Amino acid sequence: MSDIAVPDKKFELIKTDGRARRGRLRLKHGIVETPIFMPVGTVGSVKTLTPSDLHDLDAQIILGNTYHLFLRPGLEVIEHYRGLHNFIKWDRPILTDSGGFQIFSLGKLNKLVEEGAYFSSHLDGSKFVLTPELAVKIQETIGSDIHMVLDECTSFPCDEETARKSMERSMRWARRCRDAKTKDDLCQFGIVQGSMFPELREKSAKELMQIGFEGYAIGGLSVGESKDDMHRITEVCCSVLPSDQPRYLMGVGTPLDIIEGVSRGVDMFDCVMPTRNGRNGTLFTSEGRVNIKNLRYRLDDSPLDPQCACYTCKTFSRGYLRHLFLAGEITGLRLLSLHNIAYYLKLSADIRKAIEAGQFAALLDHHRGLWSS
Amino acid sequence: MSDIAVPDKKFELIKTDGRARRGRLRLKHGIVETPIFMPVGTVGSVKTLTPSDLHDLDAQIILGNTYHLFLRPGLEVIEHYRGLHNFIKWDRPILTDSGGFQIFSLGKLNKLVEEGAYFSSHLDGSKFVLTPELAVKIQETIGSDIHMVLDECTSFPCDEETARKSMERSMRWARRCRDAKTKDDLCQFGIVQGSMFPELREKSAKELMQIGFEGYAIGGLSVGESKDDMHRITEVCCSVLPSDQPRYLMGVGTPLDIIEGVSRGVDMFDCVMPTRNGRNGTLFTSEGRVNIKNLRYRLDDSPLDPQCACYTCKTFSRGYLRHLFLAGEITGLRLLSLHNIAYYLKLSADIRKAIEAGQFAALLDHHRGLWSS
Repeated sequence: MSDIAVPDKKFELIKTDGRARRGRLRLKHGIVETPIFMPVGTVGSVKTLTPSDLHDLDAQIILGNTYHLFLRPGLEVIEHYRGLHNFIKWDRPILTDSGGFQIFSLGKLNKLVEEGAYFSSHLDGSKFVLTPELAVKIQETIGSDIHMVLDECTSFPCDEETARKSMERSMRWARRCRDAKTKDDLCQFGIVQGSMFPELREKSAKELMQIGFEGYAIGGLSVGESKDDMHRITEVCCSVLPSDQPRYLMGVGTPLDIIEGVSRGVDMFDCVMPTRNGRNGTLFTSEGRVNIKNLRYRLDDSPLDPQCACYTCKTFSRGYLRHLFLAGEITGLRLLSLHNIAYYLKLSADIRKAIEAGQFAALLDHHRGLWSS
Repeated sequence: MSDIAVPDKKFELIKTDGRARRGRLRLKHGIVETPIFMPVGTVGSVKTLTPSDLHDLDAQIILGNTYHLFLRPGLEVIEHYRGLHNFIKWDRPILTDSGGFQIFSLGKLNKLVEEGAYFSSHLDGSKFVLTPELAVKIQETIGSDIHMVLDECTSFPCDEETARKSMERSMRWARRCRDAKTKDDLCQFGIVQGSMFPELREKSAKELMQIGFEGYAIGGLSVGESKDDMHRITEVCCSVLPSDQPRYLMGVGTPLDIIEGVSRGVDMFDCVMPTRNGRNGTLFTSEGRVNIKNLRYRLDDSPLDPQCACYTCKTFSRGYLRHLFLAGEITGLRLLSLHNIAYYLKLSADIRKAIEAGQFAALLDHHRGLWSS
């Protein structure tokens, strides 16, 4: 497809198994083996964990949130520290979102116009306008290995005309973001929009491919739609997006969502679920979900997940973890978050191994059984 | 002093420098080099930290709180896990208080009689009576290497007659605790009471020595008295207590309080200050106190304490720690608590080295200058 611009090649597709893809992404701060889950470090830390913990867990890439970091500590601080990596002392790749999603969900959106989004900070009400150009500038200052274009978050549910207009604005913003990009050593991903309308999704993906990015994300899912819709739209997007570029399903999801995404050709995922659920006492294990508050674990000597090699599972009993959680001990929140991140990263590694071995279908079946029960 | 009972000898006095003592305490779960600061793990975790962290910091012994552990997780759980060490997975020594102090400060004390203290749980109001015998039974179930006798917490300030009656009851309770002791491999410490009255303190110490314990604590200080009173009463107690047994100043204190205590002959200290202050953003460093919230640290590239070897100081800038703290990130609370515990343990090690080298006076002078400025 000679009409598709392919910038500097960062992604290598190593093997496929059905539509599942085993890939390798070469970024400024290191190599990312895909499929991969990316832990979320909203305001400069993956909640309750340290860079040392994340190294021990073999996290390959983490997320930062542009909206949060822009408001606090702010660009001046991040510039002083020569970027987010040095500020937070994380030496592996970082991906940042563009800030758009948080303006719509956390900030107060005052005015949305072609120029950009006028919003008030959720922290102190101070007013800003986030344009595509500023979103790029902030993320280049942050120095994220992968930064995302600014897009408009389409409300859900919405009619096709609303979805079309919103998607078209996102595509114009995507072009402005590409034009504003100044750093060749950092990657920029476009974001496919179009709500639940396959034709809009297809059009969006093709427009982004015309512009040409180092990777493509599927945005606007995990917003309240059915699993069927999520899967259907993921399939549409993956059927259009170039096979030699990475694909990122934003804000997704549960372990089953991830493996279902991989089965449709997605390479990258992020979600606050493992850390947030960890802090709420809900754990993902090889035996399914565990609610650590449950009385049944009071005298349980077994580890949270007998098949997990994380510090939490290698060291403590369910009874002790339950006690820490009920007593409100910060150590408990940390140990539970640590395990959930370990679970998601182990799931990613298992998926990669299964694809390499041509046994992805069996792994998918196993997880469909595990999480539906 | 042949009339003083000296049970099975656990303590070795290695060297003195003035009244400062360098000692070694042999306990069931390991050796404790004194002087030592003991981090407090109220409900089964030193707040924000794990056993692995405490090993890395070379913590030699930690505290547990009998009152908290009795209420939650409760004796049945601790018995099921064959003691606190196995429950919390800490393999080095543990000291537990008797629970008395928490009944007076946290619980609702309903009735105080010769039999014991009737109180209501601060968690759910359920009613209990803590007797000296039960305090011993709970602590032997916990399996703490050192457990404390149940004592009455004398109100402060109080008149001499009140202090005398309270101290005398504590001495009767101390004898009942000694009589109730069943485990030879665990140590039991008596607690000197008598408020700010030297004659009462002397009488209390001598009565405890008549009963005979593996060590002696100074209770009822750090309750609001002046530093002069704290020092004066510490001196009185240390002048009476046997030189060949360990001395423990309960609930003390700031770094300067600790070194002042050592200068008067104290060997052991505990306090929630390093963890609590860590969570409040107040740090102890080789350059004095640091309030990490301060705007001056916003763009500060230097470590929290340039002379500290802890993970926090070896890895992060003051600017990042300030950001984490202001953003309310749990990771920040953990990194700050980690440093403060590291500071207290380093102080303990510095004190031990100074005594060994006969240079304790210089270290004391240094800290007097550092903390008064």
